[in-house]
Amino acid sequence: MPRLVLASASPARLAVLHGAGVKPLVQVSEVDEDALVASLPAGTPHERVVTELARAKATDVLPVLREQGLRDAIVIGCDSMLLFDGALQGKPRTVEAARERWKTMAGRSGELLTGHAVLRVRDDELVSEAADHSGTIVHFGTPTDEELEAYLDSGEPLEVAGAFTLDGHGGWFVDGVEGDPSSVIGIGLPLVRRLLAEVGISVARLWAENAAIPVEALEN
Amino acid sequence: MPRLVLASASPARLAVLHGAGVKPLVQVSEVDEDALVASLPAGTPHERVVTELARAKATDVLPVLREQGLRDAIVIGCDSMLLFDGALQGKPRTVEAARERWKTMAGRSGELLTGHAVLRVRDDELVSEAADHSGTIVHFGTPTDEELEAYLDSGEPLEVAGAFTLDGHGGWFVDGVEGDPSSVIGIGLPLVRRLLAEVGISVARLWAENAAIPVEALEN
Repeated sequence: MPRLVLASASPARLAVLHGAGVKPLVQVSEVDEDALVASLPAGTPHERVVTELARAKATDVLPVLREQGLRDAIVIGCDSMLLFDGALQGKPRTVEAARERWKTMAGRSGELLTGHAVLRVRDDELVSEAADHSGTIVHFGTPTDEELEAYLDSGEPLEVAGAFTLDGHGGWFVDGVEGDPSSVIGIGLPLVRRLLAEVGISVARLWAENAAIPVEALEN
Repeated sequence: MPRLVLASASPARLAVLHGAGVKPLVQVSEVDEDALVASLPAGTPHERVVTELARAKATDVLPVLREQGLRDAIVIGCDSMLLFDGALQGKPRTVEAARERWKTMAGRSGELLTGHAVLRVRDDELVSEAADHSGTIVHFGTPTDEELEAYLDSGEPLEVAGAFTLDGHGGWFVDGVEGDPSSVIGIGLPLVRRLLAEVGISVARLWAENAAIPVEALEN
Protein backbone atom coordinates (compact mmCIF):
# COMPACT_ATOMS: atom_id res chain seq x y z
CA MET A 1 0.00 0.00 0.00
CA PRO A 2 2.00 3.02 -1.22
CA ARG A 3 1.87 6.20 0.86
CA LEU A 4 1.33 9.45 -1.01
CA VAL A 5 4.03 12.04 -0.31
CA LEU A 6 3.94 15.68 -1.36
CA ALA A 7 7.44 17.12 -1.74
CA SER A 8 6.31 20.73 -1.27
CA ALA A 9 5.85 23.26 1.51
CA SER A 10 2.97 24.93 -0.36
CA PRO A 11 -0.23 25.07 1.71
CA ALA A 12 -2.15 25.75 -1.52
CA ARG A 13 -0.99 22.45 -3.07
CA LEU A 14 -1.85 20.59 0.11
CA ALA A 15 -5.29 22.21 0.17
CA VAL A 16 -5.95 21.14 -3.44
CA LEU A 17 -5.10 17.54 -2.55
CA HIS A 18 -7.18 17.64 0.63
CA GLY A 19 -10.11 19.01 -1.35
CA ALA A 20 -9.63 16.25 -3.90
CA GLY A 21 -9.93 13.63 -1.18
CA VAL A 22 -6.34 12.64 -0.47
CA LYS A 23 -4.10 13.46 2.46
CA PRO A 24 -0.44 13.14 1.60
CA LEU A 25 2.48 13.11 3.95
CA VAL A 26 4.39 16.36 3.48
CA GLN A 27 8.13 16.11 3.11
CA VAL A 28 9.61 19.40 1.99
CA SER A 29 12.53 19.24 -0.43
CA GLU A 30 15.66 21.30 0.02
CA VAL A 31 16.56 21.81 -3.60
CA ASP A 32 18.60 24.91 -4.42
CA GLU A 33 16.31 26.07 -7.20
CA ASP A 34 18.48 28.91 -8.43
CA ALA A 35 21.50 26.62 -8.70
CA LEU A 36 19.50 23.99 -10.54
CA VAL A 37 18.14 26.51 -13.03
CA ALA A 38 21.66 27.89 -13.55
CA SER A 39 22.89 24.37 -14.28
CA LEU A 40 20.46 23.83 -17.17
CA PRO A 41 21.75 24.55 -20.68
CA ALA A 42 21.08 28.07 -21.95
CA GLY A 43 17.88 28.14 -23.93
CA THR A 44 16.26 25.25 -22.09
CA PRO A 45 12.55 25.54 -22.90
CA HIS A 46 10.46 27.09 -20.09
CA GLU A 47 8.28 23.96 -19.81
CA ARG A 48 11.41 21.90 -19.32
CA VAL A 49 12.68 24.19 -16.56
CA VAL A 50 9.61 23.76 -14.36
CA THR A 51 9.47 20.02 -15.04
CA GLU A 52 13.13 19.57 -14.11
CA LEU A 53 12.57 21.55 -10.91
CA ALA A 54 9.58 19.35 -10.07
CA ARG A 55 11.62 16.21 -10.69
CA ALA A 56 14.49 17.51 -8.57
CA LYS A 57 12.16 18.33 -5.67
CA ALA A 58 10.57 14.87 -5.72
CA THR A 59 13.92 13.11 -6.04
CA ASP A 60 15.42 15.18 -3.25
CA VAL A 61 13.12 13.72 -0.59
CA LEU A 62 13.77 10.05 -1.45
CA PRO A 63 16.73 9.64 0.96
CA VAL A 64 14.66 11.20 3.76
CA LEU A 65 11.82 8.76 3.15
CA ARG A 66 14.33 5.91 3.22
CA GLU A 67 15.68 7.13 6.56
CA GLN A 68 12.12 7.26 7.87
CA GLY A 69 11.58 3.65 6.82
CA LEU A 70 8.90 4.51 4.27
CA ARG A 71 9.63 1.80 1.70
CA ASP A 72 6.51 2.05 -0.44
CA ALA A 73 5.52 5.52 -1.65
CA ILE A 74 4.30 7.74 -4.44
CA VAL A 75 6.15 11.05 -4.35
CA ILE A 76 4.80 14.13 -6.10
CA GLY A 77 6.96 17.16 -6.86
CA CYS A 78 5.72 20.39 -8.47
CA ASP A 79 7.11 23.72 -9.54
CA SER A 80 5.14 26.74 -10.79
CA MET A 81 6.21 29.86 -12.64
CA LEU A 82 4.43 32.52 -14.64
CA LEU A 83 5.54 33.01 -18.22
CA PHE A 84 4.94 36.68 -18.97
CA ASP A 85 6.37 38.75 -21.81
CA GLY A 86 8.57 35.79 -22.68
CA ALA A 87 10.25 35.46 -19.29
CA LEU A 88 9.66 33.11 -16.35
CA GLN A 89 8.53 34.95 -13.23
CA GLY A 90 8.97 33.42 -9.81
CA LYS A 91 8.11 34.99 -6.45
CA PRO A 92 8.53 38.79 -6.36
CA ARG A 93 9.66 38.76 -2.68
CA THR A 94 9.24 42.54 -2.15
CA VAL A 95 6.29 44.93 -2.21
CA GLU A 96 8.03 47.05 -4.81
CA ALA A 97 8.61 44.11 -7.16
CA ALA A 98 5.04 42.85 -6.71
CA ARG A 99 3.62 46.33 -7.42
CA GLU A 100 5.75 46.59 -10.54
CA ARG A 101 4.56 43.18 -11.74
CA TRP A 102 0.92 44.11 -11.27
CA LYS A 103 1.35 47.44 -13.04
CA THR A 104 2.64 45.43 -15.99
CA MET A 105 0.23 42.46 -15.81
CA ALA A 106 -3.06 44.32 -15.18
CA GLY A 107 -5.51 43.75 -18.03
CA ARG A 108 -3.13 41.41 -19.82
CA SER A 109 -2.48 37.65 -19.94
CA GLY A 110 0.30 35.26 -18.97
CA GLU A 111 0.80 31.50 -18.96
CA LEU A 112 1.15 29.71 -15.65
CA LEU A 113 3.48 26.76 -16.13
CA THR A 114 3.53 23.98 -13.55
CA GLY A 115 5.97 21.10 -13.76
CA HIS A 116 4.90 17.82 -12.17
CA ALA A 117 6.88 14.69 -11.35
CA VAL A 118 5.47 11.48 -9.89
CA LEU A 119 7.92 8.89 -8.52
CA ARG A 120 6.91 5.36 -7.56
CA VAL A 121 9.05 3.83 -4.83
CA ARG A 122 8.61 0.15 -3.97
CA ASP A 123 10.73 -1.79 -1.47
CA ASP A 124 13.05 1.20 -1.22
CA GLU A 125 13.65 1.25 -4.98
CA LEU A 126 12.59 3.92 -7.47
CA VAL A 127 10.70 1.62 -9.84
CA SER A 128 9.05 4.11 -12.18
CA GLU A 129 8.55 7.81 -12.75
CA ALA A 130 6.48 10.10 -14.91
CA ALA A 131 6.76 13.85 -15.46
CA ASP A 132 5.12 16.54 -17.55
CA HIS A 133 3.94 20.14 -17.33
CA SER A 134 0.63 22.00 -17.45
CA GLY A 135 0.31 25.36 -19.16
CA THR A 136 -2.72 27.51 -18.36
CA ILE A 137 -3.43 30.96 -19.72
CA VAL A 138 -4.35 33.48 -17.02
CA HIS A 139 -6.26 36.67 -17.85
CA PHE A 140 -5.52 39.31 -15.25
CA GLY A 141 -8.04 41.93 -14.18
CA THR A 142 -7.21 45.52 -13.35
CA PRO A 143 -7.29 46.31 -9.63
CA THR A 144 -7.86 49.94 -8.72
CA ASP A 145 -4.91 51.67 -7.05
CA GLU A 146 -6.70 51.30 -3.70
CA GLU A 147 -7.25 47.58 -4.30
CA LEU A 148 -3.69 46.97 -5.46
CA GLU A 149 -2.22 48.67 -2.39
CA ALA A 150 -4.54 46.69 -0.11
CA TYR A 151 -3.52 43.49 -1.91
CA LEU A 152 0.17 44.32 -1.49
CA ASP A 153 -0.48 45.09 2.19
CA SER A 154 -1.89 41.59 2.64
CA GLY A 155 1.58 40.22 1.87
CA GLU A 156 0.12 37.42 -0.23
CA PRO A 157 1.53 38.32 -3.66
CA LEU A 158 5.13 38.55 -2.39
CA GLU A 159 5.67 34.83 -1.86
CA VAL A 160 3.77 33.29 -4.76
CA ALA A 161 4.89 32.57 -8.31
CA GLY A 162 3.80 35.37 -10.62
CA ALA A 163 2.69 37.63 -7.73
CA PHE A 164 -0.89 36.32 -7.70
CA THR A 165 -3.07 33.51 -6.44
CA LEU A 166 -6.27 32.08 -7.86
CA ASP A 167 -7.51 30.54 -4.62
CA GLY A 168 -6.59 33.43 -2.30
CA HIS A 169 -6.98 37.20 -2.18
CA GLY A 170 -5.75 37.38 -5.78
CA GLY A 171 -8.86 35.60 -7.03
CA TRP A 172 -10.71 38.94 -7.23
CA PHE A 173 -8.21 40.10 -9.86
CA VAL A 174 -8.13 37.09 -12.18
CA ASP A 175 -10.85 37.52 -14.78
CA GLY A 176 -10.46 34.01 -16.16
CA VAL A 177 -8.21 31.17 -17.25
CA GLU A 178 -7.91 28.84 -20.21
CA GLY A 179 -6.78 25.45 -18.99
CA ASP A 180 -6.63 23.61 -15.71
CA PRO A 181 -7.25 25.91 -12.71
CA SER A 182 -5.73 23.45 -10.21
CA SER A 183 -2.42 23.72 -12.06
CA VAL A 184 -2.58 27.49 -11.51
CA ILE A 185 -3.01 26.92 -7.77
CA GLY A 186 0.09 24.75 -7.96
CA ILE A 187 -0.81 21.11 -8.60
CA GLY A 188 -2.76 20.07 -11.66
CA LEU A 189 -5.15 17.29 -10.72
CA PRO A 190 -5.95 16.00 -14.22
CA LEU A 191 -2.25 15.88 -15.10
CA VAL A 192 -1.33 14.17 -11.81
CA ARG A 193 -4.10 11.66 -12.52
CA ARG A 194 -2.50 10.87 -15.88
CA LEU A 195 1.01 10.62 -14.38
CA LEU A 196 -0.30 8.37 -11.59
CA ALA A 197 -1.87 6.11 -14.22
CA GLU A 198 1.53 5.94 -15.95
CA VAL A 199 3.06 4.54 -12.77
CA GLY A 200 0.14 2.18 -12.24
CA ILE A 201 -1.98 4.00 -9.64
CA SER A 202 -5.63 5.01 -10.13
CA VAL A 203 -7.38 7.85 -8.34
CA ALA A 204 -9.79 5.28 -6.90
CA ARG A 205 -6.86 3.51 -5.25
CA LEU A 206 -5.47 6.79 -3.99
CA TRP A 207 -8.81 7.57 -2.34
CA ALA A 208 -9.05 4.12 -0.81
CA GLU A 209 -5.56 4.10 0.62
CA ASN A 210 -4.67 7.72 1.36
CA ALA A 211 -7.90 9.33 2.49
CA ALA A 212 -8.41 8.15 6.03
CA ILE A 213 -5.42 9.61 7.81
CA PRO A 214 -6.36 12.60 9.99
CA VAL A 215 -5.09 15.91 8.64
CA GLU A 216 -3.55 16.88 11.98
CA ALA A 217 -1.23 13.88 11.87
CA LEU A 218 0.18 14.96 8.54
CA GLU A 219 0.78 18.67 8.77
CA ASN A 220 4.21 18.64 10.25
CA MET B 1 -19.95 49.81 7.94
CA PRO B 2 -21.98 47.32 5.88
CA ARG B 3 -21.82 43.67 6.89
CA LEU B 4 -21.32 41.13 4.08
CA VAL B 5 -24.00 38.44 4.02
CA LEU B 6 -23.94 35.29 1.90
CA ALA B 7 -27.43 34.02 1.17
CA SER B 8 -26.31 30.46 0.49
CA ALA B 9 -25.82 27.19 2.36
CA SER B 10 -22.96 26.18 0.03
CA PRO B 11 -19.75 25.43 1.92
CA ALA B 12 -17.88 25.77 -1.40
CA ARG B 13 -19.05 29.38 -1.86
CA LEU B 14 -18.14 30.19 1.73
CA ALA B 15 -14.69 28.65 1.23
CA VAL B 16 -14.09 30.77 -1.88
CA LEU B 17 -14.91 33.93 0.07
CA HIS B 18 -12.79 32.86 3.03
CA GLY B 19 -9.89 32.16 0.68
CA ALA B 20 -10.40 35.58 -0.90
CA GLY B 21 -10.06 37.25 2.47
CA VAL B 22 -13.64 37.97 3.52
CA LYS B 23 -15.82 36.28 6.09
CA PRO B 24 -19.50 36.82 5.43
CA LEU B 25 -22.37 36.12 7.72
CA VAL B 26 -24.29 33.17 6.31
CA GLN B 27 -28.04 33.49 6.12
CA VAL B 28 -29.55 30.70 4.06
CA SER B 29 -32.50 31.58 1.85
CA GLU B 30 -35.61 29.45 1.70
CA VAL B 31 -36.60 30.08 -1.89
CA ASP B 32 -38.65 27.36 -3.58
CA GLU B 33 -36.40 27.12 -6.61
CA ASP B 34 -38.61 24.78 -8.61
CA ALA B 35 -41.63 27.02 -8.12
CA LEU B 36 -39.65 30.10 -9.13
CA VAL B 37 -38.34 28.46 -12.28
CA ALA B 38 -41.87 27.29 -13.13
CA SER B 39 -43.12 30.88 -12.73
CA LEU B 40 -40.75 32.25 -15.37
CA PRO B 41 -42.09 32.65 -18.91
CA ALA B 42 -41.44 29.67 -21.21
CA GLY B 43 -38.27 30.25 -23.19
CA THR B 44 -36.61 32.45 -20.55
CA PRO B 45 -32.90 32.44 -21.47
CA HIS B 46 -30.78 30.13 -19.31
CA GLU B 47 -28.60 33.02 -18.13
CA ARG B 48 -31.71 34.83 -16.97
CA VAL B 49 -32.95 31.79 -15.03
CA VAL B 50 -29.83 31.54 -12.85
CA THR B 51 -29.70 35.30 -12.36
CA GLU B 52 -33.34 35.45 -11.27
CA LEU B 53 -32.73 32.58 -8.84
CA ALA B 54 -29.72 34.42 -7.41
CA ARG B 55 -31.76 37.60 -7.00
CA ALA B 56 -34.62 35.70 -5.35
CA LYS B 57 -32.23 34.06 -2.86
CA ALA B 58 -30.63 37.36 -1.89
CA THR B 59 -33.99 39.12 -1.60
CA ASP B 60 -35.45 36.29 0.45
CA VAL B 61 -33.10 36.88 3.39
CA LEU B 62 -33.76 40.63 3.70
CA PRO B 63 -36.68 40.27 6.17
CA VAL B 64 -34.55 37.93 8.32
CA LEU B 65 -31.72 40.46 8.45
CA ARG B 66 -34.23 43.14 9.43
CA GLU B 67 -35.53 40.94 12.26
CA GLN B 68 -31.94 40.45 13.40
CA GLY B 69 -31.40 44.20 13.52
CA LEU B 70 -28.78 44.18 10.76
CA ARG B 71 -29.56 47.54 9.15
CA ASP B 72 -26.48 47.96 6.99
CA ALA B 73 -25.51 45.05 4.76
CA ILE B 74 -24.34 43.80 1.39
CA VAL B 75 -26.20 40.61 0.51
CA ILE B 76 -24.87 38.21 -2.12
CA GLY B 77 -27.06 35.54 -3.72
CA CYS B 78 -25.84 32.98 -6.27
CA ASP B 79 -27.26 30.13 -8.28
CA SER B 80 -25.31 27.64 -10.42
CA MET B 81 -26.43 25.22 -13.11
CA LEU B 82 -24.69 23.30 -15.85
CA LEU B 83 -25.85 23.92 -19.39
CA PHE B 84 -25.27 20.66 -21.23
CA ASP B 85 -26.73 19.55 -24.53
CA GLY B 86 -28.93 22.64 -24.43
CA ALA B 87 -30.59 21.90 -21.07
CA LEU B 88 -29.93 23.26 -17.57
CA GLN B 89 -28.75 20.56 -15.19
CA GLY B 90 -29.15 20.95 -11.45
CA LYS B 91 -28.23 18.43 -8.75
CA PRO B 92 -28.65 14.80 -9.80
CA ARG B 93 -29.74 13.70 -6.28
CA THR B 94 -29.32 9.93 -6.92
CA VAL B 95 -26.36 7.71 -7.75
CA GLU B 96 -28.15 6.45 -10.85
CA ALA B 97 -28.76 9.97 -12.17
CA ALA B 98 -25.18 11.04 -11.43
CA ARG B 99 -23.78 7.95 -13.17
CA GLU B 100 -25.97 8.64 -16.18
CA ARG B 101 -24.79 12.26 -16.32
CA TRP B 102 -21.13 11.25 -16.21
CA LYS B 103 -21.60 8.60 -18.91
CA THR B 104 -22.94 11.43 -21.08
CA MET B 105 -20.52 14.20 -20.04
CA ALA B 106 -17.21 12.26 -20.06
CA GLY B 107 -14.81 13.67 -22.62
CA ARG B 108 -17.21 16.44 -23.59
CA SER B 109 -17.86 20.06 -22.56
CA GLY B 110 -20.63 22.03 -20.88
CA GLU B 111 -21.12 25.60 -19.71
CA LEU B 112 -21.41 26.30 -16.01
CA LEU B 113 -23.73 29.26 -15.54
CA THR B 114 -23.75 31.10 -12.23
CA GLY B 115 -26.19 33.91 -11.52
CA HIS B 116 -25.08 36.56 -9.02
CA ALA B 117 -27.04 39.27 -7.25
CA VAL B 118 -25.61 41.89 -4.91
CA LEU B 119 -28.03 43.93 -2.77
CA ARG B 120 -26.99 47.00 -0.79
CA VAL B 121 -29.09 47.61 2.31
CA ARG B 122 -28.62 50.86 4.24
CA ASP B 123 -30.71 51.91 7.25
CA ASP B 124 -33.03 48.98 6.63
CA GLU B 125 -33.67 50.08 3.04
CA LEU B 126 -32.68 48.32 -0.17
CA VAL B 127 -30.83 51.24 -1.77
CA SER B 128 -29.23 49.58 -4.79
CA GLU B 129 -28.73 46.25 -6.46
CA ALA B 130 -26.70 44.74 -9.25
CA ALA B 131 -26.99 41.35 -10.91
CA ASP B 132 -25.40 39.41 -13.75
CA HIS B 133 -24.22 35.92 -14.66
CA SER B 134 -20.90 34.20 -15.39
CA GLY B 135 -20.62 31.52 -18.05
CA THR B 136 -17.58 29.24 -17.98
CA ILE B 137 -16.90 26.36 -20.35
CA VAL B 138 -15.94 23.15 -18.53
CA HIS B 139 -14.05 20.37 -20.32
CA PHE B 140 -14.75 17.04 -18.63
CA GLY B 141 -12.23 14.23 -18.45
CA THR B 142 -13.06 10.57 -18.74
CA PRO B 143 -12.91 8.69 -15.44
CA THR B 144 -12.34 4.95 -15.69
CA ASP B 145 -15.27 2.78 -14.57
CA GLU B 146 -13.42 2.12 -11.30
CA GLU B 147 -12.86 5.85 -10.75
CA LEU B 148 -16.44 6.77 -11.62
CA GLU B 149 -17.87 4.21 -9.19
CA ALA B 150 -15.51 5.41 -6.45
CA TYR B 151 -16.54 9.00 -7.17
CA LEU B 152 -20.22 8.09 -6.98
CA ASP B 153 -19.54 6.22 -3.71
CA SER B 154 -18.10 9.43 -2.24
CA GLY B 155 -21.57 10.96 -2.49
CA GLU B 156 -20.14 14.25 -3.67
CA PRO B 157 -21.62 14.44 -7.20
CA LEU B 158 -25.19 13.82 -6.02
CA GLU B 159 -25.71 17.20 -4.36
CA VAL B 160 -23.86 19.56 -6.68
CA ALA B 161 -25.04 21.32 -9.83
CA GLY B 162 -23.98 19.37 -12.90
CA ALA B 163 -22.84 16.33 -10.84
CA PHE B 164 -19.25 17.58 -10.48
CA THR B 165 -17.04 19.89 -8.46
CA LEU B 166 -13.87 21.69 -9.43
CA ASP B 167 -12.58 22.18 -5.88
CA GLY B 168 -13.44 18.72 -4.54
CA HIS B 169 -13.08 15.09 -5.57
CA GLY B 170 -14.37 16.01 -9.03
CA GLY B 171 -11.27 18.10 -9.74
CA TRP B 172 -9.43 14.98 -10.96
CA PHE B 173 -11.98 14.66 -13.77
CA VAL B 174 -12.09 18.24 -15.08
CA ASP B 175 -9.42 18.64 -17.73
CA GLY B 176 -9.80 22.39 -17.96
CA VAL B 177 -12.08 25.42 -18.12
CA GLU B 178 -12.42 28.54 -20.24
CA GLY B 179 -13.52 31.39 -18.01
CA ASP B 180 -13.62 32.15 -14.32
CA PRO B 181 -12.95 29.05 -12.18
CA SER B 182 -14.42 30.62 -9.03
CA SER B 183 -17.76 30.93 -10.82
CA VAL B 184 -17.61 27.17 -11.45
CA ILE B 185 -17.12 26.58 -7.72
CA GLY B 186 -20.21 28.70 -7.18
CA ILE B 187 -19.33 32.36 -6.72
CA GLY B 188 -17.41 34.28 -9.34
CA LEU B 189 -15.01 36.66 -7.62
CA PRO B 190 -14.25 38.96 -10.58
CA LEU B 191 -17.98 39.33 -11.32
CA VAL B 192 -18.83 39.94 -7.66
CA ARG B 193 -16.08 42.56 -7.62
CA ARG B 194 -17.73 44.33 -10.56
CA LEU B 195 -21.20 44.12 -8.99
CA LEU B 196 -19.85 45.40 -5.67
CA ALA B 197 -18.33 48.36 -7.51
CA GLU B 198 -21.74 49.04 -9.05
CA VAL B 199 -23.23 49.39 -5.57
CA GLY B 200 -20.28 51.49 -4.40
CA ILE B 201 -18.13 48.97 -2.51
CA SER B 202 -14.49 48.17 -3.34
CA VAL B 203 -12.72 44.92 -2.54
CA ALA B 204 -10.28 46.94 -0.42
CA ARG B 205 -13.17 48.13 1.74
CA LEU B 206 -14.55 44.59 1.96
CA TRP B 207 -11.19 43.36 3.24
CA ALA B 208 -10.91 46.18 5.74
CA GLU B 209 -14.37 45.74 7.18
CA ASN B 210 -15.25 42.06 6.79
CA ALA B 211 -12.02 40.18 7.30
CA ALA B 212 -11.43 40.19 11.03
CA ILE B 213 -14.38 38.24 12.34
CA PRO B 214 -13.36 34.75 13.48
CA VAL B 215 -14.64 31.99 11.21
CA GLU B 216 -16.11 30.03 14.14
CA ALA B 217 -18.43 32.89 14.98
CA LEU B 218 -19.93 32.82 11.50
CA GLU B 219 -20.50 29.21 10.64
CA ASN B 220 -23.87 28.75 12.21
